[in-house]
Amino acid sequence: MRVNGEPMRTIEAQSDSCAVHIIDQTALPLACRVVRLASLADVVRAIRSMQVRGAPLIGVTAAYGVALALAPQADNETLLAAVDTLAATRPTAVNLQWALARQQSCLLPLPPAARAAAAWREAGRIAEEDVEQCRRIGEHGLRLLGACRRAGKRLEVMTHCNAGWLATVDHGTALAPVYAAFDAGLEIHVWVSETRPRNQGLLTAWELRLHGVPHTVIADNAAGLLLATGVIDAVLVGADRIAANGDVANKIGTYLKALAARAAEIPFYVAAPRSTIDFACANGAAIPLEERAGDELRLVHGGDAAARPGQLRQLPPEAAVANPAFDVTPAALVSALLTERGVCRASAQGLRTLYPEERDA
Amino acid sequence: MRVNGEPMRTIEAQSDSCAVHIIDQTALPLACRVVRLASLADVVRAIRSMQVRGAPLIGVTAAYGVALALAPQADNETLLAAVDTLAATRPTAVNLQWALARQQSCLLPLPPAARAAAAWREAGRIAEEDVEQCRRIGEHGLRLLGACRRAGKRLEVMTHCNAGWLATVDHGTALAPVYAAFDAGLEIHVWVSETRPRNQGLLTAWELRLHGVPHTVIADNAAGLLLATGVIDAVLVGADRIAANGDVANKIGTYLKALAARAAEIPFYVAAPRSTIDFACANGAAIPLEERAGDELRLVHGGDAAARPGQLRQLPPEAAVANPAFDVTPAALVSALLTERGVCRASAQGLRTLYPEERDA
Repeated sequence: MRVNGEPMRTIEAQSDSCAVHIIDQTALPLACRVVRLASLADVVRAIRSMQVRGAPLIGVTAAYGVALALAPQADNETLLAAVDTLAATRPTAVNLQWALARQQSCLLPLPPAARAAAAWREAGRIAEEDVEQCRRIGEHGLRLLGACRRAGKRLEVMTHCNAGWLATVDHGTALAPVYAAFDAGLEIHVWVSETRPRNQGLLTAWELRLHGVPHTVIADNAAGLLLATGVIDAVLVGADRIAANGDVANKIGTYLKALAARAAEIPFYVAAPRSTIDFACANGAAIPLEERAGDELRLVHGGDAAARPGQLRQLPPEAAVANPAFDVTPAALVSALLTERGVCRASAQGLRTLYPEERDA
Repeated sequence: MRVNGEPMRTIEAQSDSCAVHIIDQTALPLACRVVRLASLADVVRAIRSMQVRGAPLIGVTAAYGVALALAPQADNETLLAAVDTLAATRPTAVNLQWALARQQSCLLPLPPAARAAAAWREAGRIAEEDVEQCRRIGEHGLRLLGACRRAGKRLEVMTHCNAGWLATVDHGTALAPVYAAFDAGLEIHVWVSETRPRNQGLLTAWELRLHGVPHTVIADNAAGLLLATGVIDAVLVGADRIAANGDVANKIGTYLKALAARAAEIPFYVAAPRSTIDFACANGAAIPLEERAGDELRLVHGGDAAARPGQLRQLPPEAAVANPAFDVTPAALVSALLTERGVCRASAQGLRTLYPEERDA
């Protein structure tokens, strides 16, 4: 992504100074603030507080967390403790476990003195692969989106949460095809749902605006009406974990959009790189779904910003709040999966056609 | 409803002083402020700004608006202009048109000198009927809810928006059966969706708390997960207009809950009085759906209230926002309609069994 004309990634490492720079996504869209992470604790805090979020970016950040945790001499205990600490930060996005497993199997066979440098290299490779895979998702997705367009009409895409540049190192997953389509001159417009309670839709609106892609923000509640009244040509979302049978865990509210898309016979696509697919997870019921703090819902604006900009509706602190952060969309509601290798059905067989090497997983 | 131990209605008239007192619902739940309406303009502003909202209460308030508009001598022109002005305040809730039509047909045959007093009386009757109809909805709904309860378990009801005391003069529509069940000693718990962008779920939480009914607030996005995972026994919502074929217009997001309830084979009930049924409206496609100002979505909290209570996420003023306020739930997704006359199928035939006198409508 270009920010103020300069190319910018969501995460950049400086192995020589043992630091990682991230964009603090809790400050967006008010401020684009770069934060320096210099320790394992910094990385844990950044992931937990959602300064970094988005399944692929969480994975990459955790990989750098391992590098930051390793002193020049890192024994097995230090390495495994760092992996465990990072693995416990958030439960649903499997990219986290995937990146940590990759670091562990890369580093454990090495002599302690060689581990820190190798950890930086491996984290860098994971980041570069993520960029390349997202770029390919954009290429494959461009063809998919092109086919959804009605003759002579602007292509109307609905997304949920943020599965863009900000959720990855660059390009994004669900938004990669949108950027590819826009860059190819396709007339395209994106419907961005607010995504309560954390409002990641505003991150999506911010980055679409950076790239110049026309978009409209809606309340999450509005998705059903827009899908039922023929406004939308395709729904395109990311994923936090795809089970071996094609069930998809993604940001809470995704399932409602999938139901409404199916009722309106509109394609519902899920875009994600290999690192999001959990071949060891049989189906959606086996995916751990994070429940986050109720505080995220407590303070909400009353809706009449124009009249009283300062006034907020606040739930009393004793009010009970439930805040599940993810839901599962059954494979049957997913029109297709879109990965760096192409497009496949959301099923065990579909995934095997793209990843034949996982046959025995 | 009892507030601080005293019975309180959402609207109270003082015809001798030519004033109507309402609870300013835009100040809730921060403050329970009573506002005096003393003119047609006051009533128009109160309805438009949603100081009063909820289909039945909008109807009652408009009826009082006619009374406030009529000077001691009200010619036909004054009367009809007041009706037209009030009719234009909000398009979707048919109770508004219904109450105005009733005032007009009551007042037009009268001599101008008799109209003001008659308008106060008729508005009072409409208000009293609303109270009685909501009370009956509670009685009929109590049986309906009782049948949804799993043996030995607390009854788990999900609602959307606010269809309680605050949406009517007293008791509520969807919440009337909840209060009746609670008062009858049934163990009951209500899942309250936030209802962006205006957060009427917080009104529901506030009034449930006043009455002591256990409840939990959720983001609108969470409804699908809760329904899919067997947490909910029944969904119960109000309506802004029910078409002759049983299609239901209600607060934006209702349709998504209906889809998820159907997918989970959980009953989805719609509660409304006669004044919400539009026998002249063939189906949902003919219901005018209000689009409200985008400002309602512009200012949203970033989600980390605990960390930075003052910080808000704000969409740039130039960002495009769409803000449809209602959607249509097809009759096929509605398990039953619940009115002051009892329970019926959501269909033309079902409605005729409860309202045989409307056969020729």
